[in-house]
Formats: sequence, structure tokens, C-alpha cells
Amino acid sequence: MKLHGKVLVAQGGGPTAVINQSLVGVVLESRKFSQVTGVYGAVYGVHGIVNEDFLDLTLETTHNLEQVALIPSSALFSTRDKPDEKYCQEMFRVMQAHDVRYFFYIGGNDSADTVRIVNQQVKASDYEFRAIHIPKTIDNDLMVNDHTPGYGSAARFVAQAFIGANLDNAALPGVYIAVVMGRNAGFLTAASALARKYPDDGPHLIYLPERPFSIDKFLKDVRGVYDKYGRCVVAVSEGIQDASRKPIVTTLVDTVEKDPHGNIQLSGTGVLGDLLANQVKQHLNIKRIRSDTFGYLQRSFFGCVSDVDQHEAREVGENAAQFALWHNLDGSVTIHRIGSYSVDYRLTPLEEVAGKTRRIPDEFINDEGNDVTDEFRVYLRPLLGSGFQSAYRLRAPRVPKILKKDK
Amino acid sequence: MKLHGKVLVAQGGGPTAVINQSLVGVVLESRKFSQVTGVYGAVYGVHGIVNEDFLDLTLETTHNLEQVALIPSSALFSTRDKPDEKYCQEMFRVMQAHDVRYFFYIGGNDSADTVRIVNQQVKASDYEFRAIHIPKTIDNDLMVNDHTPGYGSAARFVAQAFIGANLDNAALPGVYIAVVMGRNAGFLTAASALARKYPDDGPHLIYLPERPFSIDKFLKDVRGVYDKYGRCVVAVSEGIQDASRKPIVTTLVDTVEKDPHGNIQLSGTGVLGDLLANQVKQHLNIKRIRSDTFGYLQRSFFGCVSDVDQHEAREVGENAAQFALWHNLDGSVTIHRIGSYSVDYRLTPLEEVAGKTRRIPDEFINDEGNDVTDEFRVYLRPLLGSGFQSAYRLRAPRVPKILKKDK
Repeated sequence: MKLHGKVLVAQGGGPTAVINQSLVGVVLESRKFSQVTGVYGAVYGVHGIVNEDFLDLTLETTHNLEQVALIPSSALFSTRDKPDEKYCQEMFRVMQAHDVRYFFYIGGNDSADTVRIVNQQVKASDYEFRAIHIPKTIDNDLMVNDHTPGYGSAARFVAQAFIGANLDNAALPGVYIAVVMGRNAGFLTAASALARKYPDDGPHLIYLPERPFSIDKFLKDVRGVYDKYGRCVVAVSEGIQDASRKPIVTTLVDTVEKDPHGNIQLSGTGVLGDLLANQVKQHLNIKRIRSDTFGYLQRSFFGCVSDVDQHEAREVGENAAQFALWHNLDGSVTIHRIGSYSVDYRLTPLEEVAGKTRRIPDEFINDEGNDVTDEFRVYLRPLLGSGFQSAYRLRAPRVPKILKKDK
Repeated sequence: MKLHGKVLVAQGGGPTAVINQSLVGVVLESRKFSQVTGVYGAVYGVHGIVNEDFLDLTLETTHNLEQVALIPSSALFSTRDKPDEKYCQEMFRVMQAHDVRYFFYIGGNDSADTVRIVNQQVKASDYEFRAIHIPKTIDNDLMVNDHTPGYGSAARFVAQAFIGANLDNAALPGVYIAVVMGRNAGFLTAASALARKYPDDGPHLIYLPERPFSIDKFLKDVRGVYDKYGRCVVAVSEGIQDASRKPIVTTLVDTVEKDPHGNIQLSGTGVLGDLLANQVKQHLNIKRIRSDTFGYLQRSFFGCVSDVDQHEAREVGENAAQFALWHNLDGSVTIHRIGSYSVDYRLTPLEEVAGKTRRIPDEFINDEGNDVTDEFRVYLRPLLGSGFQSAYRLRAPRVPKILKKDK
């Protein structure tokens, strides 16, 4: 006996280049099932649920959905609301009123936790209901998953940015520091390593939140690279912390903004990059110190996407609908690497994913804590997708000097 | 009687996505001429000339040159040196020693000025010599030219960045301010306007160095947009100035770095964006204020290029070689728009381009000084090249409320 009722889908947290693929996967698949009496989309994530703000996605053409799937950011809009028990009760009340029987929430570990709480509450009632979390985050920090949809495209952006930044730094030498997103997990910063082709290519130094960051060590590292190559390209995670796990950015600014989850604002400001650049200016006798903060472009730039990421994002959405509508199951859809390279999708208990953070495993970080290992490069490469190009350089020999002028 | 001797090519100033196309255009074309006894590339621009640091580009395969043409940044490396008379004499001495008879310098208005000085000095001697300036700058600020190679690709990057930033801001509403390169000319910042598709799309406000910037007017504009749309996306040129033409960034920081041309450092720091964001935070009661500084990605990001820009960059290089080697002429190669859309290339006296800055014409800026006109959009569109996509959004209708909860 199939559970008749409506499907509700929502998107939470920060946008990605492929989160709309998952949305479209859920919608197209759900619309095929006869027990589904309607497919709604919540506007602004859970915020739209408590506010009873839904779009009727049975009136959306397949053609337009396929166009929207290609667009970065959350087409249903998003929210940073982190529901507590009361908030979830309110969501449940609204969903009951609309006879929602299947709830799909596309998001990160906070969104998984929301699904977990709602599901707990429903289980305590006699309302029949399925809730599935669909993974999404550029941070790649969900437990159980080999990687998460959104990461591959953001990683590709970061790698392509560093290919260019390295060439730029080679043309006009100096120290270049780029700050990359990633509060607690350095996966996205680590992706900068895939920019290297020639042995002297940058980034020459990579700093991750998984290892304590020391300004002294950083300055020593920069000095060493600069003395060797006459230039230095550095990738730094916005979330780097000192030995006591205090974010480096808080050691420099008086007031920091906090989001509703109590997290301090790391993105949308260039302060960390400027601080590190100032340290190099003050302590090392090097000209031309520049810093960039990649900012929101990493997750929303239009026109840099991994096709592997697109496919997987579509499939986790489609799979979520199949688990719920064919098999009447709850959980979190997770991605598992099979061979080199393919993936399987499984349904994992929400408790194993919700509210937890995966960090970079030790074998992906070098002993010095200022670079990644080849194991990480092998891990990441397939996620960048097809058509990932590398740089070329001139190989012409030097002309013998006539006037014997020194460089 | 053909002038026999060597060809020397160099790249100057900030890298672009297509400057290597021009290099390859010069090299491939020059290598066809029997009067050319060698093709040299100066390493690090004019710096490499005074230091007698040349690559022998007759030993570079055509195949590798074609790969290098696709790579951003300057394959021969670059310099910020701005030669004076003495420096140019030294260049001349080195070029004479190597029997260089044809000099091609790919760069902006400063590079054109270098070519002009060198040419003046040579004319005063009895040394037969041709010198040609090949246009390049993402700033699009060269006189005489309809536009410059490098601009189209950088403009495409900026437009694609704002398409994503606008979608991101729609999903998680607030005020988003992005700082775009352009010291004296706002062409690159203006390109953000091409990101708009739907009537409420951002950027909602565009501030250019061509109009005096007032913090009060800025805050009033942001307030107005935010009250209308519940969000606001702003594009700001790094070079915005107050009514007395003092850069806004200098009104906020105590010490600013200056380059050898006496220009203050505007790029490679997030300070202007952070300042403007702080103004909004302090004076308007709006949550979620973010700023990004696009930084070096605009000119060096690998994988965002306009094919029109590529073709034209190749052709100005090829044309330069033809003017000098077939026709024994000096000057600056300039681009002229023909119809809608094609271009012609002409040779313009160096004096008309050297050291001058073109700014955005009045008809491209709206009366309020906070946006561009449709005329500008028509001007820019062909330069972005083929395959420039736009965003799509869901069109599904709202579901009638049952609980009648207000948003």
C-alpha cells in the first residue's frame, strides 16, 4: 500500500554550482509516481515551510527545470535558519495541513540535523511521513560520504583560479596569498594543489584548518619558497586556527559578526588575506605582496562546473525520490566511491550525518602541515570532471649574451 | 630593399587572458619572413631588454606556441618598469648589439609610451629600426581603440561572476558589494551590467571612477534598492574617487603602497570592499552585508575567455608583424569597430595612444551616475564572445495558503 500525499522539497545553506541539479532530480522523479498528489517547493528553505510559502512545481515545465538545473545557487532560495524543536514542530504542523508525506531537504550537516529532528517528531505521532536528506556542500565535510555534490565544481573553480594566479605571479613575481572558503574542513583549499603542473608551479604552500597555524612558521615557509623561486603563491583556508583552535582572523579584528549558528563571519571580507599580507610586508624584505579572497565566486561563479559533480548532484536527488517513493525509506543519501572512478549511492541513518563535520584525513596532509599529499591529488582528480586543462609554457632556450649583462 | 635583422617581442604590464595570443601572432607571422634573421622574446618585458635576457623563439614549436596562446598571463613574463630616457637608451644599446631591427611591445598606454620614447631615440640615430606597440589591457582605456584585447575576456569573467553573485544574493538576501578592477576607467566594472536578465536582477547599482563617489549618495541608493527588492547587489570600481578626485580608498587607510608609476595600490587588498560594507553596516539597519574583491582572478582566471577577444588579440599581433615586415611602418595597432559586429585594424601614430587614458564616454553612464545605459550594453555584448549564457529561474505559481500564515 503506497503512501499517498504531497512531496515537499527545499534547499538550505550556502548555494553551490549544482544544488539545482538535485532539486530537479527530486522534482522530475517524484512527478512520475501515482501516489504523489502534488510536488511543492519551499521558498527560502525551512523558513518557507514555517511561513507556508510554497511553489507548485507540478506547473513547472520539464524544459525549464532542465535549464534551471544548469544554474548555480538555489533556485528555491535558501536560509541560514537552524530549526530547534519548536521550529520543527511548526514545520510539521504546516506540512500536515498540506498533506505533505514526503520531505526532501537538500543541504549540509545542519540541514541533515533539521531532517533528523523533524523525523523524530513525526515518528512520535501517528502521521505517516518520509523525510530524506540530500547531501550538498562545497566544504565536502559530510560524514560517511566519499565527497559531496557541490565540492567538485567549487574545487575546479579553485584549481583554475590558482592556475591563473600562479601564471600571474610568475609574470610579475612577488608573494600572492589567496584565501579560500572552508570553515572547519580544508578540502576546498586543498584543491588548489591540482593547479600545479611544472615542478616550480604554485601554490607552493597550502594551509588548512586541520593543522594549527603559526604566523612564525608561515613567515619562515614563505621566506624559504621565495628564496628558492623568487616568488611565492600561498593558499590559505579562511578557517585557519592557532594551536588553541582560535580562528586566526579573530586574533586581528575587534568585532566579528556571528551567524545564527554562532559561527563567526569568515567570508564576505578581505580581512584575513590583508592581515597575512601585512605580516609578510612587515617581517620579510619582499616587494609586491598581494592577497585575494576568492569569496562567493567559489560557490556561485556562473560557467565553471564539473560534469561529474553535475551528474552526481542529479542522481542524489533522483535517488532520494526513489528511496522514499518506491521503498518508503528515510535517511540521508550518501555517496560512496567505487573503483577508479565511479560511485554508488546508499541510504544512511540520519544520525550518522546530522550535525557532524568530516575533516581532511591525515594521509591527505603532508608532515609539515603546509601542503597536501599525492594521495589527495588522486582522490580529487576525478571530481573535477572532464575537460580540466593545464597550463603550458615557452620552452625556447636563452639567447647567448653579447654584452654579458647580468640579470 | 627589405630591412634585415632580428625581431624582438616583449610583454608589459598586467597579464590578460589573451596576451599570449598576440605574442604568438607576432612570432608565427615574423618567422615567415626571409629578412628576419631571428625572433627573440624579452624575458620580463623591458627589464629583460636592459638585462639582455632573451629567449630564442625560432626554437619554439608551432604546436607549443598554439598551446601557450590559450594560456592566461604573460608567457614571456612581465614588468612594471616604466622606462625613462636613460632606460630607453640602454634598451636601444642592447637591441643594437643583437641587431634587433623590429621591436614589438604588447602592453597598455605605459608600454605605448615606452615604444614612443625608444622610437624617438632611434630616429635621432642612423640605425634603421621599426617599433610597434600592440594593444593590451583589461582596463579598455587606450585612446583611438574601440576596445582593447584582454577587455572582452575580463568583462566576460566579471559578467559571469555577477550572474552567480546575483543568484547567490537572491537565495540568501542582503547587501553584496563586489569591487572590480579599473584604476581610472570603469569599463570593467560597467561589464557587470551584462549579468542582468530579469528586471530585478543585480547588479542594482554600478559605481565608476568617471563619476564622483559620495558615501551619502551610495547609502541612499542602497537603501532605495533594498527597500524595493529586499536585497541589493553593488558593483564598485576599485578606482572610485570623491569630488576632488581623491581615491575613496585613501580616505580610509593610513598607509598605501605605491608602484613605480606613482600609482597607489588598489588591487591585492580587500580594504575598499570592507570599508563600504562597514559603512552600510553602520548606517543602514540591514543584516548580512558582504563584500568581495574580485582581485587577480579577473585578469588571470584560467577557463573564462571570449573567443572574439582571442581572435582579435591574435590578429593585432599578426597585423603588427605585417605592418613592420611587409610595409616598414611604425606605430600602434588600433582596433576599430565596423558594423555589428566586426573590426578593422589600423596603424596609428604612437603619440595618439602613448601615456593617455580613455575613460567611459558620457553616453554609456546614466544621469544618476549609478548605472550604465543600454548603449553601453549594445557596445559590450559582442566583445563577450560566443556561448555567453544567461540564468534561468523557476516560474511555478505560489501554492494557496491553508493556514494563512504570513511570510
